[in-house]
Amino acid sequence: MRTDPDLRLLLVGPTEVADGLLGALDPTQRARVTVRPVRAAVGMADHPTAARGESTVRTAVQAVQDGFADAVVSAGSTGATVTAAALGLGRWPGVRRPALVATLPAVDGPVVLLDVGGTLEPGPATLARHAVLGAAYAAVAHAVAAPRVGLLSVGHEAGKGDRLRRAADPALAAVPLPCGARYVGLVEGYDISLGTRVDVVVTDGFTGNVLLKAIEGAYAMAGGPPANGGAPRAAALLGVAGTVVVCHGAAGPDDVASGIALAAHLWRRDAAGTVRALLAEIPHDPAPDRNDTEVAP
Amino acid sequence: MRTDPDLRLLLVGPTEVADGLLGALDPTQRARVTVRPVRAAVGMADHPTAARGESTVRTAVQAVQDGFADAVVSAGSTGATVTAAALGLGRWPGVRRPALVATLPAVDGPVVLLDVGGTLEPGPATLARHAVLGAAYAAVAHAVAAPRVGLLSVGHEAGKGDRLRRAADPALAAVPLPCGARYVGLVEGYDISLGTRVDVVVTDGFTGNVLLKAIEGAYAMAGGPPANGGAPRAAALLGVAGTVVVCHGAAGPDDVASGIALAAHLWRRDAAGTVRALLAEIPHDPAPDRNDTEVAP
Repeated sequence: MRTDPDLRLLLVGPTEVADGLLGALDPTQRARVTVRPVRAAVGMADHPTAARGESTVRTAVQAVQDGFADAVVSAGSTGATVTAAALGLGRWPGVRRPALVATLPAVDGPVVLLDVGGTLEPGPATLARHAVLGAAYAAVAHAVAAPRVGLLSVGHEAGKGDRLRRAADPALAAVPLPCGARYVGLVEGYDISLGTRVDVVVTDGFTGNVLLKAIEGAYAMAGGPPANGGAPRAAALLGVAGTVVVCHGAAGPDDVASGIALAAHLWRRDAAGTVRALLAEIPHDPAPDRNDTEVAP
Repeated sequence: MRTDPDLRLLLVGPTEVADGLLGALDPTQRARVTVRPVRAAVGMADHPTAARGESTVRTAVQAVQDGFADAVVSAGSTGATVTAAALGLGRWPGVRRPALVATLPAVDGPVVLLDVGGTLEPGPATLARHAVLGAAYAAVAHAVAAPRVGLLSVGHEAGKGDRLRRAADPALAAVPLPCGARYVGLVEGYDISLGTRVDVVVTDGFTGNVLLKAIEGAYAMAGGPPANGGAPRAAALLGVAGTVVVCHGAAGPDDVASGIALAAHLWRRDAAGTVRALLAEIPHDPAPDRNDTEVAP
């Protein structure tokens, strides 16, 4: 509210929590805040489909559907947010599995990592589709020219990796990429932090999620993140028809603020619409990956 | 050679490389070095089974079999080293899948992470077996009392994770653990670096490998590892009948030295024999996990 005078907030949650926040704002800022009282939240231990009923995340998504809000920011259960967004806003054509996309600072500019928890068990076709999403996102959201796209594995030599990686490597090599992007093959864990070989790192949501948190832990161990920013505390959800940002479950005030700033940045660039349009030009395999998990539990 | 006067080295590799190393030593140290000239090395891009023929790694393993050496240290292809060690030294009874074990410095003492690349696609039974191995290793190699063992996932609430984690969680909860260890349930990426919730983190070899390299990259980004040491550059291979240490493929002189020091430490404690004996007391499911990958490619 302080750094972005054009921002208006719709708070969805228990009244007393909203009141605490409103009390910390001056009258001018308060005029830019609306409250929609909802008591039921989907807990971290609940099944994601609990978000189908009346809940904070479902109500927030509904507000976007109804045109009362332009974007959703949630620091709640990732699975519940992905489920509510996919059901409420709908998926893009040709994207069965949404991806959570995080941007990490690296030596040679930002590195886009996906998926960090949207789809825990993708098949090769979904990884190839996510490569397209990631390339478009790097170009649209971060103005990366001709993004280099890599597939995360245990070595950079062809053939390294488990069955999923060995099947996905040729799938990524074959898929046409937007924005002048090119596939550089297999990359390794340190390429995410260094960014010298790659701008977009594709992996399954399980690996991406634990990786992101491990990097966060390493920065904490090293006495704090590097000067240009540490592990991101917010990720964009790509593949649903709207702007949705998921914050870390343990997010503090600064993290939620950076999540809101990311949502505003993406909405102002029409990142979702532009990425969706770029995606529509890329042919894809209409057969879904059968072993995909519907959403993150 | 300088820090450990009791150490004797058997160098296995091309003569000219050995000569370069010998030239850097003084005559007393040189007397502690033997050279076994072997030209053929298994390349990083070769299939691991290339290690079956005459090669540096196979020759080094043979030297242990023949009693000429007590331990093998390799900075070559992980898959080739695991294959050569499993074939040459044999696997422990009840361990179909060896595990590479890395020790990370954490806020509250060392954290043992396994597997970091020995078995890329374990099933739940293998993960449960690796939990036993990790607990015994933490106690034997690092004197951790009553180790807390966790399963890496995307959240700590029960039910979080992909199908492998959801199947492995009850398997780990059911397995008896040695050395007073107890299973604490699901842990997350940052628990590896912080170590406040867990001493032993169990995961598949794919995730562990990319995770370890991501942590290494994060430390490089943060301007260097923390004072008490960064990401380990050497890992112990558990499950084969002998002391085997695998160094990072991009290991420098200090990294190889720390790998040799780790091998000497483990051999002097008879870590392999002690862990094996502890393992023998734990009942296990004789049915192998069918989807295990034989060795890391």
